[in-house]
Amino acid sequence: MLKCTACGRGYSLRKPYQRCECGEPLELELFKSVPGIGRRVWERFSGFFPFDLKPELSLGEGDTPLTKAKKLSKELGVKLYLKNETTNPTWSFKDRGTYLGIHRALQLGFEKIGTVSTGNMAASVAAYGAYAGLETYILVSSTIAEEKLKALEVYGAKIIKVHGDYGELYYKSLEIGQKKGIYFINSDDPFRIEGYKSISFEIIEEITPDYVVIPTSSGGLFRGIVKGFLELKESGLIENLPRFVVVQAEGCSPICKAFNSGKDRIERFESPHTIAHAIENPYPPSGNAVLRRLRELDGLCVTVRDGEILEAQRALGREGLFVQPASATGVSAIRKLRERGVIKEGAKVVSILTGAGLKTLSHIEAPKVEECSLESLEECFRW
Amino acid sequence: MLKCTACGRGYSLRKPYQRCECGEPLELELFKSVPGIGRRVWERFSGFFPFDLKPELSLGEGDTPLTKAKKLSKELGVKLYLKNETTNPTWSFKDRGTYLGIHRALQLGFEKIGTVSTGNMAASVAAYGAYAGLETYILVSSTIAEEKLKALEVYGAKIIKVHGDYGELYYKSLEIGQKKGIYFINSDDPFRIEGYKSISFEIIEEITPDYVVIPTSSGGLFRGIVKGFLELKESGLIENLPRFVVVQAEGCSPICKAFNSGKDRIERFESPHTIAHAIENPYPPSGNAVLRRLRELDGLCVTVRDGEILEAQRALGREGLFVQPASATGVSAIRKLRERGVIKEGAKVVSILTGAGLKTLSHIEAPKVEECSLESLEECFRW
Repeated sequence: MLKCTACGRGYSLRKPYQRCECGEPLELELFKSVPGIGRRVWERFSGFFPFDLKPELSLGEGDTPLTKAKKLSKELGVKLYLKNETTNPTWSFKDRGTYLGIHRALQLGFEKIGTVSTGNMAASVAAYGAYAGLETYILVSSTIAEEKLKALEVYGAKIIKVHGDYGELYYKSLEIGQKKGIYFINSDDPFRIEGYKSISFEIIEEITPDYVVIPTSSGGLFRGIVKGFLELKESGLIENLPRFVVVQAEGCSPICKAFNSGKDRIERFESPHTIAHAIENPYPPSGNAVLRRLRELDGLCVTVRDGEILEAQRALGREGLFVQPASATGVSAIRKLRERGVIKEGAKVVSILTGAGLKTLSHIEAPKVEECSLESLEECFRW
Repeated sequence: MLKCTACGRGYSLRKPYQRCECGEPLELELFKSVPGIGRRVWERFSGFFPFDLKPELSLGEGDTPLTKAKKLSKELGVKLYLKNETTNPTWSFKDRGTYLGIHRALQLGFEKIGTVSTGNMAASVAAYGAYAGLETYILVSSTIAEEKLKALEVYGAKIIKVHGDYGELYYKSLEIGQKKGIYFINSDDPFRIEGYKSISFEIIEEITPDYVVIPTSSGGLFRGIVKGFLELKESGLIENLPRFVVVQAEGCSPICKAFNSGKDRIERFESPHTIAHAIENPYPPSGNAVLRRLRELDGLCVTVRDGEILEAQRALGREGLFVQPASATGVSAIRKLRERGVIKEGAKVVSILTGAGLKTLSHIEAPKVEECSLESLEECFRW
């Protein structure tokens, strides 16, 4: 049974419902189960997922490293762990959700899938659609950068550049999907959320965090991670929930704006502008659902500036991890929360590194290099 | 004890020997052990590695997916498995070797490391050097593309552009390293080879291949994979070795040229030119060692053209995997060997996908896209 995250209304699982009549997103009820053994998170936590997950639809997503930050832990005075989602098959966390979404589409008998995305999710849906042999439609905004289109090309999806309001496109795609028999696995599809739970399961296998920091755009990732922890608690596998921290870019922060001003509903963020394009959604479809969870669970919402993001991206590089700007926001947020005394010294903090830095090379400056001739190379080593 | 792969001369492990006086590469003797349990390949096969591997030096390399190719298996008439090394922390197989190399540098008391590379290995050594807190020197060729320099920037390594013969630079760096106290973890360092063995161990945990196809440049990856299988056989874990296939680009194929003309030693390949830059080494330092192994084990050496490589890159995209051109060479080689009747129908073939396609976007053409307005979007769905 799917239930509305706002009004609680129930919807049958037999039809492709994705949003409630009231406009808010749907979600599956909490699963309660016990973990088992297995090489992959999908096997170990099979009792927590809505269907048997098929290896033949998998590209090997999940079971990503949880890397302890050395320099940053010392510098920030916390135990900082980085959940490195850049090692997924299309190099972002989206693959976990797409894997579940593909199952859902096939379960309902769809032979066509699609998504609305300009970045990580586009590549992910194109890749999984190709592997499953489904016709795949990617709706991109008319302002998409050429490097992103190139990274989609090889998967062979049909790409449609849409001129018009990009926020509207989310809703329009669901409408068209119903008419044309295309299952749109958009950012906060209820089954995508189920896939993201696996991040929480993997974290808890290694540590019990005090804080989990989540770069947030549509709200899908946040909802999935929170649902995962709620299910772990419901199943008696953890005693307390961590405190959840939403991070947004200051230049596009509709959720933090509403949360920090005590509002119940998000408003469209005017003139969004940030270097963290992967989280630049001015009117996130799960924005209100995230707001509700933040209030219910005493969460936090933090905004960070582009300059801070770029600095954090470099700091993560010094830990050996090259992430896209959106993924670096967590480190900036933790720094702020430490300065404000919210996060206590020695706390165990997990920051989610959502996607690979290789995806967004354009803003990186070419490094300073020393130029030497082979003959006089030795003299160049005078550091 | 390190032994020369050519003359068999032994060298103490206490000193940073990397090559024999005769000029050929050194290698550790075969390990014989039994696998155990553990989440990571380094734990399960700990008895096969030369030292205790430290989690605090690891960025989570290894344990990559082995993905069954669906369309290509049918098309080529084999059971094709793709070892997806693009999901490593710096998105190439190099991380496995760097992980071991860092251990070696620290074991010998070095506080500085380096490498000679223009691509995958540069990023890998820069990342692991940063994580281990070591001063790291990356020697790149003067013709390096800006996108590659950008991908190195964040790790904070010292980058030196060297003007002069790039093949010479390998030997020159070892010389300078000895004088300046820098451990150069170059392409075929004996401990790098030890790291690559883990690929063989992971393959054998899932299937028993008839063929393993390896894109080959310096020869380090090939040597590591072969050594892994030899150790599995020596330990009684497999009965027969797979047949090993070296693939090179036709425009830079010094090993195949020597092998297929019956020569004992490789010669410098004149005017190398291929789109598969990651395997464009005209005078590979382990070239003769690879030649010896190919003869000893009845291996194969196949060359493929740039056009075939690009076609294979797209075919792999249709399996949901976006690889760099060098990684696609394996598929082209398998196609040739099937056409020639060398690989029999139904054989189990593993092709190693060495690195991520995101690393080399420049040669990809922007895809054809449909342009639509939001209002008339529905009419655009007329495929």
